[in-house]
This record gives sequence, structure tokens and C-alpha cells, in this order.
Amino acid sequence: LDYQHVQVPFEITLWIMLASLAKIGFHLYNKLPSVVPESCLLIFVGLIMGGIIYGLNDRSPPVMDSDIFFLYLLPPIVLDAGYFMPSRPFFENIGTILLYAVVGTIWNVFGIGFSLYGICQVKAFRLQDVSLLHNLLFGSLIAAVDPVAVLAVFEEIHVNEKLHILVFGESLLNDAVTVVLYKLFRSFCEMPTIKSVDVFAGVGKFFVVGLGGVLVGLSFGFTAAFTTRFTKDIRVIEPLFVFLYSYLSYLTAEMFHLSGIVAIISCAMGMKRYVEANISLKSHTTVKYFMKMWSSVSDTLIFIFLGVSTIGENHEWNWPYICFTVIFCLIWRALGVLVLTFFVNRFHVNTITSKDQFIIAYGGLRGAICFSLVFLLPDFHRKKLFIAATTVVILFTVFIQGMTIRPLVDLLAVKRKRESAPTVGEQIHIRFLDHLLAGIEDISGHWGQYYWKDKLEYFNSKYLQKILLREYDQPKSSIVLLYEKLERKHAIELAQAGQLGHGPAHPSFLSSDRAARTDQKLEDTPNPDVLDNMQEILARNLYRIRRTGPAYNRHTLPGDSEPTERAEQILILRHKNL
Amino acid sequence: LDYQHVQVPFEITLWIMLASLAKIGFHLYNKLPSVVPESCLLIFVGLIMGGIIYGLNDRSPPVMDSDIFFLYLLPPIVLDAGYFMPSRPFFENIGTILLYAVVGTIWNVFGIGFSLYGICQVKAFRLQDVSLLHNLLFGSLIAAVDPVAVLAVFEEIHVNEKLHILVFGESLLNDAVTVVLYKLFRSFCEMPTIKSVDVFAGVGKFFVVGLGGVLVGLSFGFTAAFTTRFTKDIRVIEPLFVFLYSYLSYLTAEMFHLSGIVAIISCAMGMKRYVEANISLKSHTTVKYFMKMWSSVSDTLIFIFLGVSTIGENHEWNWPYICFTVIFCLIWRALGVLVLTFFVNRFHVNTITSKDQFIIAYGGLRGAICFSLVFLLPDFHRKKLFIAATTVVILFTVFIQGMTIRPLVDLLAVKRKRESAPTVGEQIHIRFLDHLLAGIEDISGHWGQYYWKDKLEYFNSKYLQKILLREYDQPKSSIVLLYEKLERKHAIELAQAGQLGHGPAHPSFLSSDRAARTDQKLEDTPNPDVLDNMQEILARNLYRIRRTGPAYNRHTLPGDSEPTERAEQILILRHKNL
Repeated sequence: LDYQHVQVPFEITLWIMLASLAKIGFHLYNKLPSVVPESCLLIFVGLIMGGIIYGLNDRSPPVMDSDIFFLYLLPPIVLDAGYFMPSRPFFENIGTILLYAVVGTIWNVFGIGFSLYGICQVKAFRLQDVSLLHNLLFGSLIAAVDPVAVLAVFEEIHVNEKLHILVFGESLLNDAVTVVLYKLFRSFCEMPTIKSVDVFAGVGKFFVVGLGGVLVGLSFGFTAAFTTRFTKDIRVIEPLFVFLYSYLSYLTAEMFHLSGIVAIISCAMGMKRYVEANISLKSHTTVKYFMKMWSSVSDTLIFIFLGVSTIGENHEWNWPYICFTVIFCLIWRALGVLVLTFFVNRFHVNTITSKDQFIIAYGGLRGAICFSLVFLLPDFHRKKLFIAATTVVILFTVFIQGMTIRPLVDLLAVKRKRESAPTVGEQIHIRFLDHLLAGIEDISGHWGQYYWKDKLEYFNSKYLQKILLREYDQPKSSIVLLYEKLERKHAIELAQAGQLGHGPAHPSFLSSDRAARTDQKLEDTPNPDVLDNMQEILARNLYRIRRTGPAYNRHTLPGDSEPTERAEQILILRHKNL
Repeated sequence: LDYQHVQVPFEITLWIMLASLAKIGFHLYNKLPSVVPESCLLIFVGLIMGGIIYGLNDRSPPVMDSDIFFLYLLPPIVLDAGYFMPSRPFFENIGTILLYAVVGTIWNVFGIGFSLYGICQVKAFRLQDVSLLHNLLFGSLIAAVDPVAVLAVFEEIHVNEKLHILVFGESLLNDAVTVVLYKLFRSFCEMPTIKSVDVFAGVGKFFVVGLGGVLVGLSFGFTAAFTTRFTKDIRVIEPLFVFLYSYLSYLTAEMFHLSGIVAIISCAMGMKRYVEANISLKSHTTVKYFMKMWSSVSDTLIFIFLGVSTIGENHEWNWPYICFTVIFCLIWRALGVLVLTFFVNRFHVNTITSKDQFIIAYGGLRGAICFSLVFLLPDFHRKKLFIAATTVVILFTVFIQGMTIRPLVDLLAVKRKRESAPTVGEQIHIRFLDHLLAGIEDISGHWGQYYWKDKLEYFNSKYLQKILLREYDQPKSSIVLLYEKLERKHAIELAQAGQLGHGPAHPSFLSSDRAARTDQKLEDTPNPDVLDNMQEILARNLYRIRRTGPAYNRHTLPGDSEPTERAEQILILRHKNL
């Protein structure tokens, strides 16, 4: 036995296997996932696993490595989120999302940080040694809403598209703010004195981190699109480029201390439409499928690891601090959403209702990002307290909020997502309105979103498409594409329906065939259904034309007998089978 | 800049990117890959990369790590090979393949080992310090034909199926022999005295290693098939199980010192038919596509790394030893093939022609497996000589033999692979003959391959299918499946042909539409082709029936107007467009 040799890949494979089997297990009982979100179940599995490891080894199970989380587990999920991001609602609400993500997160960080510092001043709690800066640092990591947790819960409750994109977009874009504030406070903790220059540098850094991420992402995205122009002869490695370039964009951004999440999202959104046009249909299926598969596995592993890491002796249980953290997280988020939405609603016709506001505030789940960040903290004597508080906040939000949000959505009758895709007619009208509004904005001199969208489309068709698309001279309208897809689907349905229909039966042929078999061989022959199927196929495909036309004739060549007529017959025969 | 943090994944991604881009580069010029095999080009790229690294750092570039090769690069290629193995020709020729793989490899090992020992006795060559055991050890690693190299060359020359499976099957199955002989001689080198018991243990070990590999592989394969019975509700992780279980089978086999290659091939071949029946069509596309993609990347990386590792100062250039190694490799393989084929041809009706024998002997390419094994040798003073000899043999076989085999195949007019897939008629006849021959063998009491195949099929349908398939009561015959596939393809073609046909033109509508646009917005509107397309779609889909039927009528419900009639009209309209 040589376990050492294969240990690393073997254990990784086993963990992934455990995650996948757990997922299958939950779905075998249909009732369970409809009540408890999958994320809770997975954390629960993790807790059990952690307990087993703790019980067997008699020491704390290994915690999730922050490097593994940020380098290997997070990127697939964010890539999936960016690639399948519905771009229309995202860009329509980009202002509101940015407001929540930037101002809202800063509000939460300072709100939680200062009020926890206030709690620390109460002598009875014995927390006087936690400085303001440490509280702010803790606030910066606990304030950020987690995209993985949000996605896991919101994908199951099907709220309306706008509400979904507001919460989810915020959770993705607040990464830039979190990264900056976290690193700022961490470096402040290690500095002897803090000058006002440092504070201003921090503010400037925010723009660098965010916009730098967008730039890195877009440049990698366009390079990916450009590369897929040349893959026509080796279709088999096409899907690879989508993954390679987006991963590179994430790593490059992380390397330069920019926001990796923002980079990978920009990369995915930037490349999507060009890559899809360049690669083959099968490659595209593979890209989509594999992205979903990968993100699903990463997501599962993250929640299991969260559970495993919870068990152990890394915690310092100071209950006042922990309880107040949970309370402040809830209060400051609720306040922030109320105040910000008040301003948003003043400038928008399509306002955010108070029900939606409640769900936005309530949907602010914390997850693995906070958890990884708290372990990355420099060692100081109260780190274990912060770990304990973070763990409790995560478990509280994922379990209590995650499990009650679905009943609440039902109770409040929050507007749901529409079930059906928009019809072709609707699509035409939406496009018509877009053109109309762009024209109105143009005439009135108002530089609104339609104006910019129009300009962007112009730039895209004038320059980008020519560089990035292989067959740029024939861009197909999305309506034509949709029609083609429907047509293909219909054709396949027709073909399948033709197969299922009942052709004329030939009992004599069937029985003589059956009689010919010896009893001894009876088990080995294909079963009667298969034979029926075959006979049907033969009966349906032996067209009259083959029998009536002369096999050979001086005046006609063989096979000359009107192909169109035969095709018509095929169509009518198939129709009869419907 | 924080390079340390992202170094590992960043460099891996860059290497894969380089490999993929190199592949694209070769295919941009169509003429190059038709003359030089891709493997040669990739080694060449590797040599250049190695030269650059050597020039910049002034020290030898890192050699390919044997662990990385055996644990990460080899499994995807072998999995792909096993999964797409044409099982019929493989099992029809299993006897011949095993003879070549087992007896042939042993013949080569001892032939090369003893003759090189003879060379070492020539005083002028100054090689007297290389013992017989070391020569045999070297023979055991240099004798094995490499599946990666064989696949890379034989996939491009399209020889007939039997010839392909003979060479390729041998290269896969000789792994068991190589593993045993290599480990045996290596442990003999470290033993003070060798008893005859050890030799017999070695012979026994061969069966354990080979059959153990088959057992491990089959058990993981059947578990994989069983697992996919339960994935109906989470289609998205289905493809994962195929990869996880086959990788686990490889790792488990390696862990127990069994043949990993044999295990993963058995796993893939065992699970294939059940997994394919259980998983969805899209999952299956993903599995196939991703397997191809992965193996293609691994293959590319292996050849590039081979090139990179060649550069450097790891070599001891004793030319007589190196030249004689190349010569003996060629001679002993040619002799082995001649002798073994003589015996094979005596017992078979369908003999192996002398042209085929020549290609089998000539196609015995060496590759990365030898290379990794030679680096795994225990340190002794002549290791660098062995490394040099291995490198030369690999480069000789891949470059000289790999580049000349295609012209030779043309020159000798070796029977090629048939281009078209067998027709339904042929398939029915083949199956009929199988049943007939099984019956004849049964009656005559001869336990031939048809008898065993029949028994296996019986066992499969009686037990295995019931356990491993989700819908085991409706197994579809492969002929019915083929028909369904053709039907679907035909339907899609019909739909596409309908789209491409020219509907009636509406010049008045078209021109009035165009006049309505302002000049200023002209660039933004979709181009005329798209408009034409849309009009065609509308014209084709506005059926007469919608206009003639009354919109509302006391006696009919809306939408009641004979759906079949409408369907017929659709079919006729579509037919007219053909």
C-alpha cells in the first residue's frame, strides 16, 4: 500500500465525491429541499463530518484554507454568476446596485464597527481591550453580503428579476469595497500612527481596485473572444479558452491587489456574446454545462467545509459581543436599505416597494468570504473571538434567515419571477421601445441609459464585432436566432412524435418471426417491444414510390424518380403518424 | 504585486494556455499538420521553450515531474482512450493483443537487455560497469510501446480498424507487464542475492497486477453506473461522476501497486453503456466533449514537457550504447512481431498481412512513460546515460518513425479505415451472424468468442441491467436508437432547409419600411438581410387558416379549429420551401 504517493489527488477526489453524493442524497427525498435550503443541509453534513473527525482524532478538524477558498473554490462560482448574469436587468439597475454595494457597504462597516466599539466600552462585558480599529476591521469583513450564500438561497425562492438582481448584484460588486476596507484597516492596525494622507489614499484606492478589476476583466474577455476566432479547426479545445482566460483575469487581478470578483465578472460578461457566436453549438453546451457543474460542486464544497471548520477549539465565546454583532448586522443593514432606497425611489419612476425593501434587507446573508477573511486576520489575542462571532453570524443568517425567507416571501406575496420566457412579439416591442427611447433621449439632449446603450451598440457593431467575430458580416438578429431555435425544437418534436405514433401492425409477420425462434434462445432475443418498434420503422419507411416505379427503364436513370415527390410523401406519411 | 500568492495556479494556467495556443497555431496553417505529426511540432515547441529557459536562467530547465505525469497528465488520456475504445474489434482481437502485450513485451525486455549487456562487454566502449541487471532494468522501461505517442500518430494516419486496435491495444495493456518487470528489476538491483522464489513471485505478481487492475476498474465502473441511476433530479453533476469514479479507480489501483492504466480502461469500458443510458443527452455531450478536451490538453502538455525536459545537462553521451539501444529496439520489435504473428496466423482465418506486420513493428513508438520511468530510477552512476539513451530513442521514434509512417502507409497501400459508418442493413446482418455463430458454437460444443459473448449478454440483460439502469424495463435496441438519431438529424436538416428557402418577396412592405427610417438612425437599424429574414419568417408562418376561420363563433371555442389540419398546412408549407 502506497497511500503517500496518491494522497493529494485521492483526498480531493473523495471530498468532491462526498459533496456530489450529498447533493444526490438530498434530492432523493423531494420534500426536504423544499423546506430547508440546500446550503443549510450541506453545512449540517459538514458539521457531522467535523464532529466525526474531531471525535476520531481528538483535535480540531482542519479549517478551510483561505488560499484554497479564494484561488480554487470561489472563481468557478463567480464565473458562473457573471456568465449567466441577465445583462438587461443588471445594467438597468446598475446605479441602484452600485449605491447599495458601495455606500451601503461603507455604511454597514462603519455602523457595525462603531456600535461594537460602543459595546466594548461597557465594563461588564470585559471587552475594553478591543480597539476601535479592530472593531472597524471586524466590521469590514462582517458587513459584506456573500454572493455564494445569496445565490444558494435566492435561486430557490424565485423572487422577481429586479429584486434578485439588486441583492445579487450588490453581493458581487461589494467585493471591491470589502477588499479595500479590509486591507486598509489591516494595514492601519500594523501602523504606529495613521495620517490623513493614508485615509485619502484609501479612498483613491477604492476606484483603482474597482475600475482596475473591470479593465483587467474586459481585456482578458476580449482576448478570449479574439482567440476563439481561430478555433474553427479544433473545436475540441474551444471551451477551454473560456475557462482559462476568465481564471487568468481573476488571478491577474488578485496579483495586483485588484478585485478578482469584479474582474472575472467583467471578463465573463464581456466575452459572452462574442464567444457564443464564434464557438460551435456543442462547445457552447459544454461550456454552459461545465460551468454549472463546477460552480455547483464548488458551492457544495464551500458549505461542507464551512460546517467542518465550525467544529473545534478555535472559538472564544464572549456572548455579549457575539449577540450584539448579530443584532447590529441586522439593524444597520435594515437602516441602510431604508435610507438608500428612499433616495433611489425619489429619482426613479419604477420604485422599490416596501416589501422588496424588506426582502433586500433580510436577504443580506453572510457566508464563506467573511469566514475566509477572518482566518486571514493577523494573529492578535482576540482573533478567536472574531472567529466565533463570524461563525455565529454566518450560521444565523444561513440557517434562520435562509430558512424563513421562503415562507416570508409567500406570506408577503412578494412579486415572483414570471415563469415563461418573453414571446417573440414582446421581444419585438421591447426592442422597438428601446429604439424609440434612445431617439427621444437623443432629441431632448438627455444622456440617459438608452442613449448610452445605443452608443455602445453602435461602437460594438462598428468596431468590436469586426475584430472579435469570425463571421462578422452576417450578425444574426436575436429574433431570427430565437426563431431558428424554436423551429429546430419543433422539428425534433415532430420527429419524435412520428416515432411514437402507431403504424399498421403485421401480426402474421410477427408471429412467424416468433415461431422461428427456438425456446432455448428465447431469453437472448430482443424483447417484443423492440421488434414492434423495428417493424413500425420499416412499415413507415417503405414508401409506395419504391414499389410502383420501374426498377430500370430505358428512358429514366435509376433513382431519377422525382425526389420532391418522395419528400412530399415522406412529409405526409410523417404527418399521418402525428 | 503579490506573485507568490497566485504562483501555482497562475503558472499551471499559463502552461495550459501555451499548449492550447500552440495547437491553434499549428492548425492555422493547414499544410503543416498534414506533413509533420502534431506530436513532433509540440516537442519542437518544447525544445524552443527549454532553450529559452536554459538561456535565460543558465541552468537546466525543470524536467517533467514523474508524479505530475502519472497522477495528473496520463489519466485523462487513458480515460479518453478507454471510453472511446471500439469494443467490438478490441474483444475480437483480445487474444492477439494480449499476446503482443505480454509475450511481446517480455521478449523485447529480455532481448534488448541481454543484447545491450553484450555490447557492454566490448572493452572499447568503456561500459563494463553496467551490470546485466541494470541492462534488464533499462530494457524493461525502454521496451514498452507508449499509448500517448501511438495515439497521437495513429489518429492521423487512419489505417484499418484491426491494425489500429492491435498497436493501440498492445500499447495500453503492456502497462501491466512494464509495471511488474520494472519494479521487479528495480527491487532486484537493491537486493544482495536473488533467489528463485523471487523470480516466481514476480511471475505470479504479473497476474495480480493485471487482473487486480481489471477488478478495481470494473468495480468502480459499476458503482459509477449505479450512482447515475439516482441523478435524474440534478442532471448538472452527472458528468462529474464519470470523471470522479474513473480517476478514483486509477488512484486506487496505483495505491495498491496494480496497473492504473488497466484499471481506468476497465472502468471506462465497464461503465460506458450503462452511464450513457442513464444520463441525459446534454450530460453525455458534456462528458464526451470534456473527455476529448482534457485528453487533448494533457497530450499537448506531455509533448511540450518532453521537449522542455530534453534540454539541459542531465545526459551522458556514450554514443555506442545509445546507437545500439535504438538499433536493438527496432530489431527486437521487428523479430517479436514476426514470430508472434506467425503463431497468430496459424490459428486465425483472418490473418495479419505482411504489410500490417511491418506497420505494427514500425508503429512501436516510445514516449513519455519511458521518460518518466527513467527519471524514477534509483540514483546510480550511469543514470544519466540511461536518460540520454531514453531521450534519443523517444525522439527517434517520434520524429523519424512518426514522420515517415504516413508516407510508408501510402507507399505500401495499407488497407485504410472505411470512411462511412455501417448502414442499418449491415448492422442487422452483423447481429444476425453473431446470433447464428453463437448458435453454431453452442451446438458444436465449442467455447469460442461468440459463445462467451452470448453468455455475457445474457448475464448483462438478466442481472446487470436491472441493477445499473434506471429504466431497465425498456432497453432500446441500438438499431432503434440509430434510427431515432437519423430521424432527429433529418428533422433538423428539414427545419434548416426550410429556413434557407426563399419565400415570396414583399417589395412594397419592404420599401415602405425602409423609407420610414430617418437617415440619421440608418447605421443603428439591423441590416437589410436581417429584415429580409424576418419578413420571410413572418410570411411563412402566417397561415391561411388563421385568416379564414371566424375569430369567435357561438358554436366553436376559440382555437378549436382542427389542430391536425393546421399541422398539415405547416408541413406542406415547409415542404414547398424545400
